[in-house]
Amino acid sequence: MKKVTLAHGNGGAENQELISKVFYKAFENEILAKSEDAAIIDNGRLAFTTDSFTVSPIFFNGADIGKLSICGTCNDLAMMGAKPKYLTCSVIIEEGFEVDKLETIVNSMKIELEKNGAKVVSGDTKVVPKGSVDKIFINTTGIGEVQKEGISSNKVSTDDVIIVSRDIGAHGATIFASREGMDMNTDLQSDCASLWPQVEALINENINITALRDATRGGLSAVLNEWAVQSDICIEVNEEAVPVKDEVKGLCELLGFEAMSLANEGTFVLAVKKEDAKKAIEVLSSFENSSNASIIADVTKQYDKKVVLNSPWGTKRFLELPTGELLPRIC
Amino acid sequence: MKKVTLAHGNGGAENQELISKVFYKAFENEILAKSEDAAIIDNGRLAFTTDSFTVSPIFFNGADIGKLSICGTCNDLAMMGAKPKYLTCSVIIEEGFEVDKLETIVNSMKIELEKNGAKVVSGDTKVVPKGSVDKIFINTTGIGEVQKEGISSNKVSTDDVIIVSRDIGAHGATIFASREGMDMNTDLQSDCASLWPQVEALINENINITALRDATRGGLSAVLNEWAVQSDICIEVNEEAVPVKDEVKGLCELLGFEAMSLANEGTFVLAVKKEDAKKAIEVLSSFENSSNASIIADVTKQYDKKVVLNSPWGTKRFLELPTGELLPRIC
Repeated sequence: MKKVTLAHGNGGAENQELISKVFYKAFENEILAKSEDAAIIDNGRLAFTTDSFTVSPIFFNGADIGKLSICGTCNDLAMMGAKPKYLTCSVIIEEGFEVDKLETIVNSMKIELEKNGAKVVSGDTKVVPKGSVDKIFINTTGIGEVQKEGISSNKVSTDDVIIVSRDIGAHGATIFASREGMDMNTDLQSDCASLWPQVEALINENINITALRDATRGGLSAVLNEWAVQSDICIEVNEEAVPVKDEVKGLCELLGFEAMSLANEGTFVLAVKKEDAKKAIEVLSSFENSSNASIIADVTKQYDKKVVLNSPWGTKRFLELPTGELLPRIC
Repeated sequence: MKKVTLAHGNGGAENQELISKVFYKAFENEILAKSEDAAIIDNGRLAFTTDSFTVSPIFFNGADIGKLSICGTCNDLAMMGAKPKYLTCSVIIEEGFEVDKLETIVNSMKIELEKNGAKVVSGDTKVVPKGSVDKIFINTTGIGEVQKEGISSNKVSTDDVIIVSRDIGAHGATIFASREGMDMNTDLQSDCASLWPQVEALINENINITALRDATRGGLSAVLNEWAVQSDICIEVNEEAVPVKDEVKGLCELLGFEAMSLANEGTFVLAVKKEDAKKAIEVLSSFENSSNASIIADVTKQYDKKVVLNSPWGTKRFLELPTGELLPRIC
């Protein structure tokens, strides 16, 4: 590892290597070591998380970098059972960027903040010379109030089943199609959405939630593999049960992508106690954004820290943590 | 305002215009409206602040972008009387960046975190294709525990005097000299440093602090003008009392800069009650980094929301909020 490559930002294997060898090594502490979607601080009372958004293009079907920047951070809080409350917003703008585009982006942020009941309370604005940044990058960092304690990716067990909240891969497929100018005659649309409303409903219905994670960079594959390692379990996926829209399937077949590794921005994975699975699906199904939620996997001890894909034809293969460049600037 | 210009990032007048017309307008709320160095949340218990660092060059006399990224955010917390506690760290790295340089930067962060007694508890790593960002940008966002309540830039009054913690302009002058290749034969060194130790000492000595602000982008001029407006006062500066090192003076004379507008990264301005001024200077003088702390101004009602510079020759002029491009990518 002499130079940082695009693969080091893929949300998969190389990304984990860079993070652990450089950042975790230096910043070593118990909270960081938990590798959750958000840090739990202040005696379990607050969740705290950060994300920088570099997506290209900045406007795409279903959302823009502004909406994405609020969803991304608020969702990481929601995944810890925390209600998004206070956000900071730091923008780095390229000289010459149009003010009306900036206003559109900031307005998208405002709308999405309202859906979360959160506020931006502190900010920073940098303008850099042409060529120092491509258009605009946005960092949002959020604090949430934990409403349900103990949600953790380190606790998934054979008492749980795995649910995905909706069809996968829409965001990754949309961004790719948009970059290649393939987005004109298609219904492809990013799944970008705030997930706190769904999580809040699950908590209110007393669903016994073990773990939650939104399937962003690295997609469903990354989440399942991270959980398999963190919780020391085997996850056996019923491939047929994983919802994938036809438009996404089509793009994957055409280009050789794996829908399981495509990024999502409003799709989350749940580990819930078996007896609550049906009720969890009912709760999720009442939301438009998760109307096709599906139980996709069992947790077993079959293979140590592995994810197994059971095909409809009775074959088995390991689903590995994604590697390689995947799609840079996906979020 | 049709396009974002470099002046919109200057820490001065145009920067304030962009922030108020675009960001404050959309994100409107009471906490943001206070325009403090950090937001005070959670019933006054916590301070919360963000900063993105785009400095160029990334290594310079006295510090690097890593040290700067910790000092900048921890100092904004310290300026609200808050002990830095939890930080997030989000890096955006250009493809091809050397891993050993990244390690040097992250190590600088680690060292500076220890000086503040703070931890990085959550992070994000993005890698973008060559040309999408220049080398590396770092966002840090911090939470601090308020140790002394009520410090605010909106409360400076004629009962206060204004102190600057050390000689001004060292960071801005160093970055400029470094960019122009003028940094070889000079003692110029950035003032970049963590300020929590000084603030903690002032609090422990029961100094009656009204307001604190670190004089970053826009320099001393920006801080004094912001305070004059926010607190509806006139600040009358004794120009002769403002410490400026000879190297900085020389560079300013050579290039027509105003030391008062040069950025600092380890220099802060204090408004303290008159009767505590002498003791505050004593406390500051016991630290190497603020050994030349100086009382520089009185607060009056002479001119509404204005800063007046009284020269040693008995002349007076207004010190205006900086305008124009100043030095982009200074922090």
